Amino acid sequence: MGNIVTILTDFGTKDHYTGSMKGVIYGINPEAIITDITHEVPSHDIISASFLLKNFHGYFPPGTVHLVVVDPGVGSGRLPIAVSACGQYFVGPDNGVFSLIYENARELKIIAIENEAYMRSEISSTFHGRDVFAPAAAHISRGLPIDELGAPLGSPVMLDFPEPSVNGNEISGEILYTDTFGNMITNIRGSNVPPNSRIIIDGHRIEHISASYSEAAEGELLALTGSSGFLEISVNRGSARELIGKVAKSVKVIT
Amino acid sequence: MGNIVTILTDFGTKDHYTGSMKGVIYGINPEAIITDITHEVPSHDIISASFLLKNFHGYFPPGTVHLVVVDPGVGSGRLPIAVSACGQYFVGPDNGVFSLIYENARELKIIAIENEAYMRSEISSTFHGRDVFAPAAAHISRGLPIDELGAPLGSPVMLDFPEPSVNGNEISGEILYTDTFGNMITNIRGSNVPPNSRIIIDGHRIEHISASYSEAAEGELLALTGSSGFLEISVNRGSARELIGKVAKSVKVIT
Amino acid sequence: MGNIVTILTDFGTKDHYTGSMKGVIYGINPEAIITDITHEVPSHDIISASFLLKNFHGYFPPGTVHLVVVDPGVGSGRLPIAVSACGQYFVGPDNGVFSLIYENARELKIIAIENEAYMRSEISSTFHGRDVFAPAAAHISRGLPIDELGAPLGSPVMLDFPEPSVNGNEISGEILYTDTFGNMITNIRGSNVPPNSRIIIDGHRIEHISASYSEAAEGELLALTGSSGFLEISVNRGSARELIGKVAKSVKVIT
Repeated sequence: MGNIVTILTDFGTKDHYTGSMKGVIYGINPEAIITDITHEVPSHDIISASFLLKNFHGYFPPGTVHLVVVDPGVGSGRLPIAVSACGQYFVGPDNGVFSLIYENARELKIIAIENEAYMRSEISSTFHGRDVFAPAAAHISRGLPIDELGAPLGSPVMLDFPEPSVNGNEISGEILYTDTFGNMITNIRGSNVPPNSRIIIDGHRIEHISASYSEAAEGELLALTGSSGFLEISVNRGSARELIGKVAKSVKVIT
Repeated sequence: MGNIVTILTDFGTKDHYTGSMKGVIYGINPEAIITDITHEVPSHDIISASFLLKNFHGYFPPGTVHLVVVDPGVGSGRLPIAVSACGQYFVGPDNGVFSLIYENARELKIIAIENEAYMRSEISSTFHGRDVFAPAAAHISRGLPIDELGAPLGSPVMLDFPEPSVNGNEISGEILYTDTFGNMITNIRGSNVPPNSRIIIDGHRIEHISASYSEAAEGELLALTGSSGFLEISVNRGSARELIGKVAKSVKVIT
Repeated sequence: MGNIVTILTDFGTKDHYTGSMKGVIYGINPEAIITDITHEVPSHDIISASFLLKNFHGYFPPGTVHLVVVDPGVGSGRLPIAVSACGQYFVGPDNGVFSLIYENARELKIIAIENEAYMRSEISSTFHGRDVFAPAAAHISRGLPIDELGAPLGSPVMLDFPEPSVNGNEISGEILYTDTFGNMITNIRGSNVPPNSRIIIDGHRIEHISASYSEAAEGELLALTGSSGFLEISVNRGSARELIGKVAKSVKVIT
């Protein structure tokens, strides 16, 4: 236990960048169990990376180190940080990508990575993933206390995530994320939406909340509580994005 | 041995879904060796998933657990199953995706997964991959006998795969799969096609069977026995799909 | 240590080919630590594969085996080879893909793989990756001396890589590689380019060399020494390929 390192980046999958980070990690911790989450976060999209991280990290065992490199500010003044929260560790830039981790964490600790003993000896200004973050993640996965990496950081960067607004029996929400299947994941918790609610999205009406995809006819627009716990707009054996013709911005729930 | 878990899905590679499954598996079996096959099975395409599974599973050592989540009927009545065949294990939905495994298996055992002790405590209606299949695969990879998961299933769902038809010296077949290189893999066993056979595909004629790509001139259409043992239509240093301009449906062999 | 096997191919990510190779490796060495670099080398592009390999291999620990299958000549006369260089091992076709490894290697050893005891018993003419290269890599990762695989090869195939030319205070170079972010990586070593140099690329002028992306305004074309040590043309929080509208062929530096 404690040897798992997940990697989440916007590096794409065709270059050598992720491979170089893996090499650095194995060089420091030959026992590391490295696992790719995805490298297809849209370029520089910190919001999507936060959303993905929030959704998968809790399924990993205690002690897992999550290495997140979506880092448009690499080489600028933004700090590299290591975070301990919820029994797991997080390594990446202080650009808000860990905002959703901070929110519910008991015993949160955030450290600015400053100790050069745990970095590569030459540091490229364009690739801290390889030269700063991967070494830090590898050392943590071997058991290094994160305090050894630097001093506590008082005020980390926080992103603003849109919250749904409630007005009488109407909840107005936004689409947070659209997945490979064309499911549109809203920012409205499924537990706040009774089964007989109606949904209005981009001119389409959905007359109630389904319990599963197959409750709707094939090709029909439906709404349900998705696997992330949020209200999702989907199509049974199809794609909501294709049916609607685009990614909708907002959604209205009438409870 | 016995700790390998392969994952084959239609989840795509940009979301958090596969990452969540990996976390669940490591949480149950920290010694698991998880290996991705592909997550780019076309959405809901059970036939392609069956074809891929048939082609790679035999190269893995005994005891390997193959986790296959191509599951358009998730949340409906279709059963989750665990299969023991050929010294290996298979976990996924009972929708026919394991049809080609059943065909040649000695000592086949099929179990309907019912025992909630081996599922996650909360089960999303849209993501049995994470909440039912991944836990089952992880427990099997730790040595759990599949009988512990539930009761034997009598009549699993079987898919119809097209078989070639023979008429005198003519074999009529279909294209089963087209790969990244544009090779078209037919359903005709290469061993049934003598070297001096002629091939007709979408109006193109191929005058004999090649032993390797390089026997044909660069850019020329050719036919050979591919690495799956089936007759394939290819182009030396090129793409048969591009040369023909589309994926052909059928192929004729004159022996 | 010594159990890591990296895989670099042009197989794409949708088929069963890489999965089959992984199965073969685990079958021979159940302790292998298999790690994907990328499978999206452009089809048959030996030059790009060489460039990627040069850039990531040095970050892996001693004893790592790098399995490279970009093999347009599979089934023709080209030899399968195993290479020992720089404390690491390389397995793949003798088509020049290891040229950049040979260049700086002390104690280089190149072996033609001939010993059938270390191949699969049936060898497809179209998939030596599975039947010849993967078994060889797996055996090496278990500690087999590469001399056991065959006899030394005197003259391996070498590729010509373009070298920059210097004329007075002008360096003329070429674009070697364009990455996912649209950064264009030139063949000019960053250490040969003083900070006050000017760059001309496809009609665009860049007036000095930056130390990091964020030194330039957002959306502005810039030049810096990238993480590979070469001069790169980039855009702060954008894509040089998009700004220029294509991948440039050549670049001029006025020092």
